[in-house]
Amino acid sequence: MPHIELNNDRPGIVGLFQYRPETARPLMELTEVLLRGESTLSRGERELIATYVSALNECEFCTLTHATKATAQLPDGMIGALESSKLMALLNIAAAVRQSGHHVTEQDVASARAAGATDLEIHDTVLIAAAYCMFNRYVDGLGVIAPDDEETYRRMADFVMERGYTDGLKPA
Amino acid sequence: MPHIELNNDRPGIVGLFQYRPETARPLMELTEVLLRGESTLSRGERELIATYVSALNECEFCTLTHATKATAQLPDGMIGALESSKLMALLNIAAAVRQSGHHVTEQDVASARAAGATDLEIHDTVLIAAAYCMFNRYVDGLGVIAPDDEETYRRMADFVMERGYTDGLKPA
Repeated sequence: MPHIELNNDRPGIVGLFQYRPETARPLMELTEVLLRGESTLSRGERELIATYVSALNECEFCTLTHATKATAQLPDGMIGALESSKLMALLNIAAAVRQSGHHVTEQDVASARAAGATDLEIHDTVLIAAAYCMFNRYVDGLGVIAPDDEETYRRMADFVMERGYTDGLKPA
Repeated sequence: MPHIELNNDRPGIVGLFQYRPETARPLMELTEVLLRGESTLSRGERELIATYVSALNECEFCTLTHATKATAQLPDGMIGALESSKLMALLNIAAAVRQSGHHVTEQDVASARAAGATDLEIHDTVLIAAAYCMFNRYVDGLGVIAPDDEETYRRMADFVMERGYTDGLKPA
């Protein structure tokens, strides 16, 4: 049961967004820019970064939500995507950010650049990782329940992949 | 030196906002709602929560930035504010969120309620703490430099206290 009375039974963060629309709006807009906005990183790659950080933070709802979208949008799936040395270097930066911003080293950044990452890709990776350190804490800090059926995650993913994150993550 | 070329020399997160305005906009809007929007927590109290989490995360820029605004807006200063048992209980929740969302216990939430905190205050405290886990990582993960003169922080604080967070944190 969530730690506070949300007055709705929407799944995961959707219930929090409905509870507090004033904070939901910028949170959804941030997600839209980071995970679906114009970028030289594919949407699948960015969903994978969000999935990876959420898994390291043991946030079940965020991990399942973003894994569903990563899998659906990566042509060779999540495992196949790891054959990219650039993506591996960016995931390494994301894992450092998850621990603390101070854990990112010059060497981590140099390795990402050597693998072909641009400054903007490095910037966005740091911010995606940092943002999921927020979302994971928001969801779990309020004790929000993660649905346990795959179908709910698939319906939420289909909705977002069609309509984007700013439309309220409506269904399910 | 920042890990990436920002092409500007604005201090702290202001340089990141100028580098990437697409992400800056929702980040500033989120901050405005959380720290200055309508709330039964005072602006000073909310700045203190942001300061506390940033200090625990050892983010120098965010700690100094928000401490300046907390001090300026709390009638009895930061130490005086800690005489409120409600604020102490909310800071206790914020510290738990900083470690992980999973660290927030039913007991933490019950103590905050017993001290007079509403569900919305608990929600906003969790989200402020989570958001600063993002901002701290964003700033330090990109190796952004914190100015070392008090005057810069005071000018930034004056600007925000007059014009709000959505106006770009302009000066300095």
